[in-house]
Amino acid sequence: MLKPESFIAGAWIAPGAAATSVIGPVSATQIALAGGSALDTDAMLAHARQVGGPALRALTFHDRAKILKKLALYIDSRKEELYAINGLTGATRRDGGVDIEGGIGTLFVYASKGRSGLPDSHVYVDGEVEQLGRSGAFLGQHIATPLQGVAVHINAFNFPVWGMLEKLAPTLLAGVPAIVKPATQTCYLTEACFRMIIESGLLPEGAVQLIIGRTGDLLDKMGPQDVVSFTGSADTAMMLRNTPALIRNSTRFMSEQDSLNASILGPDADVDSPEFALFLKEAVTEITTKAGQKCTAMRRLLVPAHLADTVAAALADRLGQITVGHPDADGVRMGALASLSQKSDVLAKAAQIGTEARMICGSLDGFQPVDASPEAAFIPPTLFQCDDPDAAKIIHEVEAFGPVSTILPYRDTAHAAELANRGEGSLVASVFTHDPQVAREITLSSAAWHGRLYINNRDTGREATGHGAPMPHMIHGGPGRAGGGEELGGVRGVMHYMQRTAIQGTPEIISAITGQWIKGAPEKSNPTHPFQRTFTEIEIGETIHTDPRTITMDDIEHFAHFTGDTFYAHMDEDAAKRNPFFPGRVAHGYLLLSFAAGLFVEPNEGPVLANTGLNGLSFQKPVSAGDSIKVRLTCKRKTKRTDTYGEVAWNVTLTNQDGDQVAEYELLTMVSYDR
Amino acid sequence: MLKPESFIAGAWIAPGAAATSVIGPVSATQIALAGGSALDTDAMLAHARQVGGPALRALTFHDRAKILKKLALYIDSRKEELYAINGLTGATRRDGGVDIEGGIGTLFVYASKGRSGLPDSHVYVDGEVEQLGRSGAFLGQHIATPLQGVAVHINAFNFPVWGMLEKLAPTLLAGVPAIVKPATQTCYLTEACFRMIIESGLLPEGAVQLIIGRTGDLLDKMGPQDVVSFTGSADTAMMLRNTPALIRNSTRFMSEQDSLNASILGPDADVDSPEFALFLKEAVTEITTKAGQKCTAMRRLLVPAHLADTVAAALADRLGQITVGHPDADGVRMGALASLSQKSDVLAKAAQIGTEARMICGSLDGFQPVDASPEAAFIPPTLFQCDDPDAAKIIHEVEAFGPVSTILPYRDTAHAAELANRGEGSLVASVFTHDPQVAREITLSSAAWHGRLYINNRDTGREATGHGAPMPHMIHGGPGRAGGGEELGGVRGVMHYMQRTAIQGTPEIISAITGQWIKGAPEKSNPTHPFQRTFTEIEIGETIHTDPRTITMDDIEHFAHFTGDTFYAHMDEDAAKRNPFFPGRVAHGYLLLSFAAGLFVEPNEGPVLANTGLNGLSFQKPVSAGDSIKVRLTCKRKTKRTDTYGEVAWNVTLTNQDGDQVAEYELLTMVSYDR
Repeated sequence: MLKPESFIAGAWIAPGAAATSVIGPVSATQIALAGGSALDTDAMLAHARQVGGPALRALTFHDRAKILKKLALYIDSRKEELYAINGLTGATRRDGGVDIEGGIGTLFVYASKGRSGLPDSHVYVDGEVEQLGRSGAFLGQHIATPLQGVAVHINAFNFPVWGMLEKLAPTLLAGVPAIVKPATQTCYLTEACFRMIIESGLLPEGAVQLIIGRTGDLLDKMGPQDVVSFTGSADTAMMLRNTPALIRNSTRFMSEQDSLNASILGPDADVDSPEFALFLKEAVTEITTKAGQKCTAMRRLLVPAHLADTVAAALADRLGQITVGHPDADGVRMGALASLSQKSDVLAKAAQIGTEARMICGSLDGFQPVDASPEAAFIPPTLFQCDDPDAAKIIHEVEAFGPVSTILPYRDTAHAAELANRGEGSLVASVFTHDPQVAREITLSSAAWHGRLYINNRDTGREATGHGAPMPHMIHGGPGRAGGGEELGGVRGVMHYMQRTAIQGTPEIISAITGQWIKGAPEKSNPTHPFQRTFTEIEIGETIHTDPRTITMDDIEHFAHFTGDTFYAHMDEDAAKRNPFFPGRVAHGYLLLSFAAGLFVEPNEGPVLANTGLNGLSFQKPVSAGDSIKVRLTCKRKTKRTDTYGEVAWNVTLTNQDGDQVAEYELLTMVSYDR
Repeated sequence: MLKPESFIAGAWIAPGAAATSVIGPVSATQIALAGGSALDTDAMLAHARQVGGPALRALTFHDRAKILKKLALYIDSRKEELYAINGLTGATRRDGGVDIEGGIGTLFVYASKGRSGLPDSHVYVDGEVEQLGRSGAFLGQHIATPLQGVAVHINAFNFPVWGMLEKLAPTLLAGVPAIVKPATQTCYLTEACFRMIIESGLLPEGAVQLIIGRTGDLLDKMGPQDVVSFTGSADTAMMLRNTPALIRNSTRFMSEQDSLNASILGPDADVDSPEFALFLKEAVTEITTKAGQKCTAMRRLLVPAHLADTVAAALADRLGQITVGHPDADGVRMGALASLSQKSDVLAKAAQIGTEARMICGSLDGFQPVDASPEAAFIPPTLFQCDDPDAAKIIHEVEAFGPVSTILPYRDTAHAAELANRGEGSLVASVFTHDPQVAREITLSSAAWHGRLYINNRDTGREATGHGAPMPHMIHGGPGRAGGGEELGGVRGVMHYMQRTAIQGTPEIISAITGQWIKGAPEKSNPTHPFQRTFTEIEIGETIHTDPRTITMDDIEHFAHFTGDTFYAHMDEDAAKRNPFFPGRVAHGYLLLSFAAGLFVEPNEGPVLANTGLNGLSFQKPVSAGDSIKVRLTCKRKTKRTDTYGEVAWNVTLTNQDGDQVAEYELLTMVSYDR
């Protein structure tokens, strides 16, 4: 008997007198005892807000990203312990992989996104500086900083590990403590993974807590800096959204709920096309993986009308070959639903669907799984076919959260998009097409209804990630029926746990806040050339101004013939004059860049290792023979990259003899920490 | 008697039998009759969703931006008609300027942001391509497309013109039709401006509608693609948020409600400092403009404890000199509240504040305005001082929406931030400080509680835009009590009316959807060099591959001495070898760039006018003497800029003799539409 424990304000709390008995879906007997202890929600919230939050916020984004990476490695090293109890949930080992490896993979991706997309500091800089006055003395800059409250994650039963980790990764990266509340039915698997997180010792005190069982009055105590992120049924979501404290305090509420995801076999895909085969293959996967208990599974299969029967027959044939039964039994491809109550719910909803569609394969009663009782929570893959999808209602509204899907015929691309949109908002829709115009048309008419559009065809080779797989790089969530929420999507997912704030002030003030130099902020100088200073020594704002260099017509001629760049604006006075940008022959932009480097570079060996690139170069004013240029080079931003060197970004401007700026760019260099 | 009309499904509808009588705040007599006609909400919604939406979505972002600009010019040309009735609302002409010019200015900024920040097409590309597999055959790209529903704008009484236009600008730019519902008290001014919009003939049929009076069952019909954007009281917001249809359909609901905005006089600002003077000046402005009826007004003035009495005396003195009365009367600096009921509400709330703070100036009864009756809706500037802000509750919770503010003493910077945050979420907080560290500390401890932080000091000159002025470039909205909403902020504000969707597919598919070439998408070729083709002729994906050029040690030597760039990695074999990036002496990055241009440039005069810049250059592999490079140049993106030329962005890669990529960048050129 498993007895998963809550973790509240630093202490493990065993199941109490009022614990719930968890019935295993495979054995149909009790497998765990969960919850039922009194919950001190005030203590939890104080622990998160006053201990965990400040500790996390004291770290930089990069510090937190590094913790996520170590956490991923740690859980990965102990993952067999998770697989050992995964089967109890009804899931096969392959299903467990989606959950367990998927969760670990999400941590890895966030560790990486945190390093590449967020700064090694406490303030995220969102977008460009806005000049709010004529002279640039007063500027605007958006930033994002961590919310100062707690994130409450209410997770669904179907992905006990991934469901926790995909919400934890962006939350912790943002610097916000979390309280995790898994669904009771599979909470023992979540608890096993959560316990690893605690045992890793990697997170600061108060960063994470776990509630097994009910949340009590926790949501009634949510405030303006808290976030509730929910995954589950629309009914529960609606109840939670109505919590007065959430509404009164504008507490952020993100929801990922029902979704009647559509998959469209493109009008261009005939029976012999690779797209037809891919469609069948993915449909089988979506119907059977996790016994169809995926919020992203294909529920509605939209196929060209003339192919509906062909698809139905082919799918029925393949689904009929799927062995369903005890997850540990030989040859079993599909396991059980998560619980007995899910089984009755799915059967009831499939029966509803059956009023609008013919059953092609499957059965709604009397099914005998391999190595398990007919009373256990098994349902065979069940396929329906609907002949009048325009008149149908239930098929577009009722989600049977199991291995159940319905084939719907469509007339043309516009009709396919219209039917896909009849789901009233979904997490994902897919299109199997080799025609880019079909993809474009469906996207323009459908994208606003779906959080994700997955388009597969023969050219993706083995790289397509699957209709049903949320990738941490891409957003997960959808409008309308899907809950209107958004998770993941790299750095986008982190922003849900941060507050965007518009900052207005002088360049010096903005620079002090963001830790990045901007034009107009004070320049610093140092007697040593900055290329002779280490990453550590170079200061934000450190500047050199070079001597001027005059550009001659000989320089232009010489550069043109040396490089081969004899573009008419540099070579032909009359043609250049006819050009709206130039007064006559002008110097090459690359000549200016090269001379600029000649002006600011320090030739001797030193800590500056390499020029690795350049951003946002703009040539702003032509330079003619006889003009001279000089350079200002200022340290704008520093970012540690490896154990031995980091990236230093420099703002560079070129000005002419009249003091007019002729070019500007950001120069990227790698600089050693030591000499 | 004004009789503002609704504009429903293309028809003007006069006030009906159940019309509301609007009492003017200045005259205290009836000035208008509003609403009271039956409302066919089904017709409105169908008109917006089926006529206005498709018409707007058929236009590109740039088309819509151009309409906004024309609309701004049109309203500007007729604005005196708005000023003519502005005084009826209680506002002075100067107050009217904030409303009317502010609204027109917002249209101009959005017209400009639409051209610079959004593409001249139908799909907004959000962020970079994500490579989801090893080879790059399967990619992810986020896009945003217009919601396919309607935006319902429920506006507050205090800014009848700006309130409408600041919501309309991003909505229309997104391509979403709007239904505007102004507050009844000042709806005649909104209607006058709305009528100009219709009379301009600039917007497609169905793009905008107007409800004077009640919305009836409109919100009960909101669906998953609709947006409700509300500005007003927290009580009304809470009621609206509870509308079952909004919750059931995850309809986006944005709210901008109450806000106890704080302004902090920095600990560094002594009595003689410029910051002290700026603080007093802005406090007077915030208390008196629009008779304090601004959601962004300073409600809590946080000052160093030792300066509290000094600030109180100085402010009382200045506020005492403000002439309050009929907006048209000579010398009047402050007009009336918007209504008699607002007057009683403000007086009641000021009395509540009076239980926690001493009144320094102002009066709660018997006030005699200039040229108006004591019964009319005038209140003098009213200042309180609270001695124990930690113990106070009402001061941090109750907003008297009029010329009422309270001085609170603080001990140190941390205490000031803590008190500012006691507002439980606000639209704006300000700091008057000359010390960047003070600004940084307050930002780190407070930013998460405020939608905007405004920092003013002696260096901003006359450019500071004011504590209370939302700028269209910057977000407006705030967490918690302020409603948790966000508006404006340039393109950010447009996204609230669009759906972000993750697209996954092959490079060819992604490219077809976004209209931009990406690596891996098919290349097109043309016998004519692309630099000899016009903007119109050049196709997305059009590519040239150049011959290779070998880089010699002579080239490196020559380039170094010609440009002066004798950096050791190019000149000193041993030093270069010690560098972690290089195998020995390598070619300059700028040499490669210059040679690349020499390889791809077409020298003859032609439609390509200039290289205006370059983005995202990265040097990926060193190039040594003896290596050769060749170039691929592909048209990635085209954007019309003027009447005669547009910008063509090219993806450029340099590869060496082994086929390894050594550099990549985006090259920007301007190209004529014609030859």
